Amino acid sequence: MRRALLIGRFQPFHRGHLEALTAISREFDRVVVGIGSAQESHTLKNPFTAGERYLMIEAALEEAGITNVALLPIPDMNRNAVWVSHVTSLVPPFDVFFTNNPLPRTLFEEKGYKVQPIPFVSRSEYEGTTIRSQMLQGGPWEERVPPATAAVIRKLGGPERLRVLAGNDRA
Amino acid sequence: MRRALLIGRFQPFHRGHLEALTAISREFDRVVVGIGSAQESHTLKNPFTAGERYLMIEAALEEAGITNVALLPIPDMNRNAVWVSHVTSLVPPFDVFFTNNPLPRTLFEEKGYKVQPIPFVSRSEYEGTTIRSQMLQGGPWEERVPPATAAVIRKLGGPERLRVLAGNDRA
Amino acid sequence: MRRALLIGRFQPFHRGHLEALTAISREFDRVVVGIGSAQESHTLKNPFTAGERYLMIEAALEEAGITNVALLPIPDMNRNAVWVSHVTSLVPPFDVFFTNNPLPRTLFEEKGYKVQPIPFVSRSEYEGTTIRSQMLQGGPWEERVPPATAAVIRKLGGPERLRVLAGNDRA
Amino acid sequence: MRRALLIGRFQPFHRGHLEALTAISREFDRVVVGIGSAQESHTLKNPFTAGERYLMIEAALEEAGITNVALLPIPDMNRNAVWVSHVTSLVPPFDVFFTNNPLPRTLFEEKGYKVQPIPFVSRSEYEGTTIRSQMLQGGPWEERVPPATAAVIRKLGGPERLRVLAGNDRA
Amino acid sequence: MRRALLIGRFQPFHRGHLEALTAISREFDRVVVGIGSAQESHTLKNPFTAGERYLMIEAALEEAGITNVALLPIPDMNRNAVWVSHVTSLVPPFDVFFTNNPLPRTLFEEKGYKVQPIPFVSRSEYEGTTIRSQMLQGGPWEERVPPATAAVIRKLGGPERLRVLAGNDRA
Amino acid sequence: MRRALLIGRFQPFHRGHLEALTAISREFDRVVVGIGSAQESHTLKNPFTAGERYLMIEAALEEAGITNVALLPIPDMNRNAVWVSHVTSLVPPFDVFFTNNPLPRTLFEEKGYKVQPIPFVSRSEYEGTTIRSQMLQGGPWEERVPPATAAVIRKLGGPERLRVLAGNDRA
Repeated sequence: MRRALLIGRFQPFHRGHLEALTAISREFDRVVVGIGSAQESHTLKNPFTAGERYLMIEAALEEAGITNVALLPIPDMNRNAVWVSHVTSLVPPFDVFFTNNPLPRTLFEEKGYKVQPIPFVSRSEYEGTTIRSQMLQGGPWEERVPPATAAVIRKLGGPERLRVLAGNDRA
Repeated sequence: MRRALLIGRFQPFHRGHLEALTAISREFDRVVVGIGSAQESHTLKNPFTAGERYLMIEAALEEAGITNVALLPIPDMNRNAVWVSHVTSLVPPFDVFFTNNPLPRTLFEEKGYKVQPIPFVSRSEYEGTTIRSQMLQGGPWEERVPPATAAVIRKLGGPERLRVLAGNDRA
Repeated sequence: MRRALLIGRFQPFHRGHLEALTAISREFDRVVVGIGSAQESHTLKNPFTAGERYLMIEAALEEAGITNVALLPIPDMNRNAVWVSHVTSLVPPFDVFFTNNPLPRTLFEEKGYKVQPIPFVSRSEYEGTTIRSQMLQGGPWEERVPPATAAVIRKLGGPERLRVLAGNDRA
Repeated sequence: MRRALLIGRFQPFHRGHLEALTAISREFDRVVVGIGSAQESHTLKNPFTAGERYLMIEAALEEAGITNVALLPIPDMNRNAVWVSHVTSLVPPFDVFFTNNPLPRTLFEEKGYKVQPIPFVSRSEYEGTTIRSQMLQGGPWEERVPPATAAVIRKLGGPERLRVLAGNDRA
Repeated sequence: MRRALLIGRFQPFHRGHLEALTAISREFDRVVVGIGSAQESHTLKNPFTAGERYLMIEAALEEAGITNVALLPIPDMNRNAVWVSHVTSLVPPFDVFFTNNPLPRTLFEEKGYKVQPIPFVSRSEYEGTTIRSQMLQGGPWEERVPPATAAVIRKLGGPERLRVLAGNDRA
Repeated sequence: MRRALLIGRFQPFHRGHLEALTAISREFDRVVVGIGSAQESHTLKNPFTAGERYLMIEAALEEAGITNVALLPIPDMNRNAVWVSHVTSLVPPFDVFFTNNPLPRTLFEEKGYKVQPIPFVSRSEYEGTTIRSQMLQGGPWEERVPPATAAVIRKLGGPERLRVLAGNDRA
């Protein structure tokens, strides 16, 4: 059985993520999706809890008929030298680690793992930033996420939460 | 959609756990199984990593034909007063929390969650202790776990790891 | 008995804070003041330890004849999803949480607490920034804090500490 | 102004503690009482949150007419070499540290602080253990705590919580 | 250049440790000695700080004329799955890891490192326990440690500290 | 015996550091060099692990014939009020703490330690930033570090790592 691992923050899950998962889920028997920075929530950069992000991705996968993907929260470790051991102790063994970001790619490659670029998604973080910005300012964020995800985000009051957080000065 | 949450350490996953999941998975649309103390491994009490426990449970669920269970690692928080918030931020919303242990029951009930006893399993921790003890001493542990789980444990070298750890004096 | 909770960093405690406490202390039997980010000190943003901030506030309350306020250090939790549980486990029960900042307001409201704006103080953080900046540059910071607080800050060598820290490049 | 510091876990606050505070509060202008292991709760050894312990002590002090005592939560640091710096950064300056326990006495004395034994209370931890044991088994625990504290504990359901926790096997 | 790594708690450093280092230092160009549980001190099991243990070992090495050993504090990680990555990020690369304890042996072997038993020392932890016990009870602990180490321990007041700690009931 | 303590991040170790160590090592019997932020690696600001920095400094000291310097990793504590206790528990006693940075100077001076400026190096952090920037952009970084250090950095693939990390967008 061949398994792929892909880690993202999914703040929020968007169409680029779904395209990538669609492609990878066809190539592999199982895909483990790590919901990264799982401990983060209620900030402009990380508005949604890991549980909320789980809902968004689960809904999109169902809508797309993808059934071989497992979602796992992965809290940050904040220590690059042990991050790979941290992740690999939390997930089942995998054959390929998918990422387009240089730091995780370097860390996994240094430990001898096979790393491949995520298809279709060049730089998903930029997309996430754009979508959060549109949520905040009333832009057409819904076009950029799968319909089922949009429904979850609306139900969670995502744009309202972002607008509240944008006014935050606690610190 | 009705969802149940059940958290255990699953060191290892055993027949009692499987019976409980079989029953709960019939009653609910989805069951979230939290792999507790996810950060622990390589001790006599917690020999297996969260990823290894994932493999054990996944194999047993497939063998049993159960398809509506999701497995999520839940690291400890070591602070009872915030444990419920910790858990609920990592998992999707749920209708019932299943446990037979008094501490999690109390903590969830104090926060207003609905808690029910796990059917079929009275005190799974006692069972876990017995199985680990049998692994260590060469007893018939395999009878107590689902066949597919036994195969995963053998492949992981579970009894060997326990015997090595039993000789440990670092601390 | 009605109790209010108000949390701030008080870097330093200023006249706006005192006006607010004066008003709230008349309305409630007891006021709990949480000294937030209690673990922080010796930075430009958080120059004073929690113990030093305790001295500043205690002196101002005595000067103002306010006797129903208790001061409690509240360390940060750095995890928004559990922050409310963290705070509420450290303080006695309260009827109203006072804040003008969106993040704590949202977090407490999401958990069902009653939240009210702090009277007289619109955005105390801006005021704190201004005062620290004046301390650093020799401006008239003393006018902005209660006289008894100014005396404590002078005795602690507050402006000198800030000037030293402004030269810091360790990191 | 002379200030004393006394730290205890107060699980629960008992008559020995009150006698000690009565004596110390007469000798000093102010007494700071640190509620130690503030992050602990819901265990057999530490059943009550810091906030709940605050209520117990506050009630007893009011009943006794003691008005110069301040209560502050002190979380554990779990590193003896930095514990004194941790504590002293959270509390206002003090003249004498009161303790009957050898570890804190040693740690504070090594850093040059003046340490005195707590009057009237020889080994308060033993007393705490006895009281918790009586709560658990239905013994006459109420005689050992101030009446106002007993009322708080009853209202919090202290004995019930201990009995529930005594059945715990999560770990 | 061939380098060896050896990690111990050295509470305290004793003759068995010195014999082992003497032998290993002849076989390797450099020996890195990790002072484990570096964050611990002032307990019966870990009475001495990492800095104090540094002094003990440094003195013994000088007395023995060993010049190719480097001493490094290694704090605990409390997570077995990442412990090897933690250690290897703090020390220079090494050819052989020396240990007689099963847990570190297993962890390093699982990651593919070469592990050898420490010569002359079968179970150093037992020896450490005996020496601490003799310090506490006035036994002939000095015979069991190198003379220069004994001098350091006496100067640090080691036996006195242990006797004070033995009376501790804070917790 | 007179001992000096000097702490730096050494990202990377450069000629200014070596000049300083040369001078200090002549004045003192022993010099302890703390490799600060030891837990950091694989970032643009802290590209190298503590173990890699150990190699760089060790090589330069050998090349310079300096034999009385010991290298110790010092992880961050992220709490200024306890930082001095943290450091002093990990290192042997010292007579003078050398630093040119205001924060550590203030923290050590407040605790009563003797602090002196590092000779020859005015602001080593600026130098480190420049060298990392040159590594990234192909500038003449090798001139700024001791030859033996340059060899270690080349062998570690330092410039390549920085260029990879510069493309990072995980966060």
